[in-house]
Amino acid sequence: MTPQRCAALADKVMSADDAAAFIMPGEHVGMSGFTGAGHPKAVPGALVRRMAEAKHRDKPFTVSVWTGASTAPDLDGALAAVDGIDLRMPYQSDPLTRAKINAGLLDYLDVHLSHVAQMVWEGFFGDLDVAVIEVAGITPDGLLIPSSSVGNNKTWIDQAERVILEVNSWQPAELEGMHDIYYGTALPPNRKPIPLLRAGDRIGEAYLRCPPEKIIAVVPTHAPDRNTSVKQPDVASKLIAEHVVDFLAHEVKVGRLPDTLLPLQSGVGNIANAVLTGLDAGPFGALTAYTEVIQDGMLQLLRSGTVCVASATAFSLSDSGMAELRANIAGYRDRIVLRPQEISNHPELIRRLGCLAMNGMIEADIYGNVNSTHIMGTSMQNGIGGSGDFARNAYISMFLTPSTAKNGAISCIVPMASHVDHTEHDVQVIVTEQGLADLRGLAPRRRAKKIIEHCAHPDYRPALQDYFDRAMASPCGKQTPHLLGEAFAWHTRYLQDGSMRHR
Amino acid sequence: MTPQRCAALADKVMSADDAAAFIMPGEHVGMSGFTGAGHPKAVPGALVRRMAEAKHRDKPFTVSVWTGASTAPDLDGALAAVDGIDLRMPYQSDPLTRAKINAGLLDYLDVHLSHVAQMVWEGFFGDLDVAVIEVAGITPDGLLIPSSSVGNNKTWIDQAERVILEVNSWQPAELEGMHDIYYGTALPPNRKPIPLLRAGDRIGEAYLRCPPEKIIAVVPTHAPDRNTSVKQPDVASKLIAEHVVDFLAHEVKVGRLPDTLLPLQSGVGNIANAVLTGLDAGPFGALTAYTEVIQDGMLQLLRSGTVCVASATAFSLSDSGMAELRANIAGYRDRIVLRPQEISNHPELIRRLGCLAMNGMIEADIYGNVNSTHIMGTSMQNGIGGSGDFARNAYISMFLTPSTAKNGAISCIVPMASHVDHTEHDVQVIVTEQGLADLRGLAPRRRAKKIIEHCAHPDYRPALQDYFDRAMASPCGKQTPHLLGEAFAWHTRYLQDGSMRHR
Repeated sequence: MTPQRCAALADKVMSADDAAAFIMPGEHVGMSGFTGAGHPKAVPGALVRRMAEAKHRDKPFTVSVWTGASTAPDLDGALAAVDGIDLRMPYQSDPLTRAKINAGLLDYLDVHLSHVAQMVWEGFFGDLDVAVIEVAGITPDGLLIPSSSVGNNKTWIDQAERVILEVNSWQPAELEGMHDIYYGTALPPNRKPIPLLRAGDRIGEAYLRCPPEKIIAVVPTHAPDRNTSVKQPDVASKLIAEHVVDFLAHEVKVGRLPDTLLPLQSGVGNIANAVLTGLDAGPFGALTAYTEVIQDGMLQLLRSGTVCVASATAFSLSDSGMAELRANIAGYRDRIVLRPQEISNHPELIRRLGCLAMNGMIEADIYGNVNSTHIMGTSMQNGIGGSGDFARNAYISMFLTPSTAKNGAISCIVPMASHVDHTEHDVQVIVTEQGLADLRGLAPRRRAKKIIEHCAHPDYRPALQDYFDRAMASPCGKQTPHLLGEAFAWHTRYLQDGSMRHR
Repeated sequence: MTPQRCAALADKVMSADDAAAFIMPGEHVGMSGFTGAGHPKAVPGALVRRMAEAKHRDKPFTVSVWTGASTAPDLDGALAAVDGIDLRMPYQSDPLTRAKINAGLLDYLDVHLSHVAQMVWEGFFGDLDVAVIEVAGITPDGLLIPSSSVGNNKTWIDQAERVILEVNSWQPAELEGMHDIYYGTALPPNRKPIPLLRAGDRIGEAYLRCPPEKIIAVVPTHAPDRNTSVKQPDVASKLIAEHVVDFLAHEVKVGRLPDTLLPLQSGVGNIANAVLTGLDAGPFGALTAYTEVIQDGMLQLLRSGTVCVASATAFSLSDSGMAELRANIAGYRDRIVLRPQEISNHPELIRRLGCLAMNGMIEADIYGNVNSTHIMGTSMQNGIGGSGDFARNAYISMFLTPSTAKNGAISCIVPMASHVDHTEHDVQVIVTEQGLADLRGLAPRRRAKKIIEHCAHPDYRPALQDYFDRAMASPCGKQTPHLLGEAFAWHTRYLQDGSMRHR
């Protein structure tokens, strides 16, 4: 395979070290990458070496790192290790980066994934100096074959002053033609309707375009994506999946959903995967997906034929999922569409398609406000990602979590969420292994009853009910009864004693 | 004027009492009305008389009341007074209704205004039994001339089993032709792009349609809309307006906004009116508005020509504003478009147009999370209304408030918002009379600095800074530093002592 087939770019081919030398301290750097797929594999490491050397000479060298979403230890982790990031956006899931964020050493902008591209175009984050983008190849005409994720790559290439390309020959040649890059976005007042009517519609082009004069380096690589580890579904995940499948089947039965449901959106992670697996065993067929990532469970649904077509912005596969994709990519490539994340997460499209949104969470309170981002209200876990794009605009917005964490020391249903990412207005269904709370049409007091009875772990139910009862008996307003003086007592108890349980 | 010109409906004309007799206990009733404009004036009163009589006989008579938004004392207030409402949605601003809600006597669903119609179509709230809709007239062909608000009237008429029309001859005949009723909505998977490209575009019809066999009563009325009281802008409002105008002028200067800005959205109320007045005195021209209501300030902008065209779903005028509109309606009617609220508030359209959203709030915390609905975290004030529709999808989302309330006893900038309606992800600019905090591109810790320095009242700044400093010095996570044990100490102090001030 000769991924770089463009003669005009031949003299731009260079080593990662030479390419990284073009990146200056203080610059805004747009990197490719979404959930470990399609991030640059070589230039970040070379940049880290420059930063380490600068640090050794007491010359600080930091950059702002803008991506699609999370990347990999050799990008986020390595840069964070040398204190090379001054600002990170819009999403991360790296342990070392997270530690620096929560130590207050690194600015982190947690942004709705659908907002990122437009806000960069709008100039709200300043100019983008350089883009470092992995592609799967370059055609003889200079068109860029996107890699295993699209993310914000179109925007980074369009907006950056300079572009560094990594051409990764490890990526399958069959990726060519799978992408749908929409070039019809604009700034207001020139925006037009986005002509997408079905999850599988192709409205754009298979390639990314970049004016050759912007390309300052082409770096050949041959390196795998970061694998996403997937656990076998545990009992709780299987129960959550069952509740979701039963609920959807019921909605079909009463005529609120068509037989083929509506396009599925599924957050990243083990519970989401378990739900996808559950759907494969369920009564449904001829489904579609309009989501962010193709994870193992989605691949399984495509393999079995339960899902006809899936739209996403990236792959997010385990070792075995990746092996399956690579072995049988010919059978998948016409049924998977990879789009820019401003399209995969666009409110206009999610609302038009009527997605069924299923996202994980950290905790929900008894009124259905959801915390997706902050452990104990202050420490960033990963970020809001696209959950808000989907939850707000979905046909039905579901949030899923086991009812407890840390071996039961944490209740994921709390009196008051210690941070709110999704307000009660955007949360219609909450599911734990205990059951499913359908909150549609319920005022807050009735939501509390449903959530406590159906979702909370039995060990925590009496204390939640007691909180609610005492709030109702207090002089507070009864729309959303709370005892403000002890609303976070469960969280402070956990911080002090290591458990939310009452002693 | 003969507002009811349809011969086929002549035998349906009856008194309000006779019409109200068609409404049964326990029914779901869809009423017209949005901010005091276009609500039914006679049937609710007749319904209240039935309810009062039933109550006298110890036979409870309640209904669910679904509207566009707030109505008037003779609807919400009168029904609440006889305990005639079991569930109210999606917005209200009536003192008596509010009192019943906060006493826990009435279920209140606080819903994004753009979500209401679709969720009723989707069947999430059950069937709509009867619609009570004020119209300005009925044509000989039986087409309904919408009144001074559109709200959810199209949906109520389409979805209700039975329809009661109030034909209000008080409404100006010139309303005919001002409305744009879009009949292209659908349920997924059949939704299509909404073909609106500019604030003033007309994409629908001037009339509401209703199959005559659904119309069970036609009640003639001649009664004014509820006036919205507008105060002369006070010093704080004028300062807020100045900060907004300066900010927008700066955005134009640096090239982030066009000379003619982008379509304005302005929440209801005195501060919003003051900002509109400020815009009229500012450097801008050829503006447009894509908003929920035409209030006095917007009428002034239309009169002066600063705004060319304004789209809304309702009027919301003071006595003098209404007199001005009625006296000069010929000059306004081609420059005002009244639409269903699912269109005025549609995420697809707000994002496409790139609205400049300006909404009031109750409080913001130092990280920019906004509480729009709950006094001291538990008592409903009015509701979220359309603020979320606009804030999430705006080009720039601004929230405005005086820095203090209750003569300084309440700081509207608090350590932690006691209820969250708009998360930090949806809040880009906060404005008080003290100044403007531009939060774009800032991580939470930097947002805190900006908000404390620019927006908080000087009397509260040291205590906010002290809270932030102590949170930073604590062992908590530093992405969003908080002291959970005292995050609501300001609110509990107010509840105990009548002031948030430290003694």
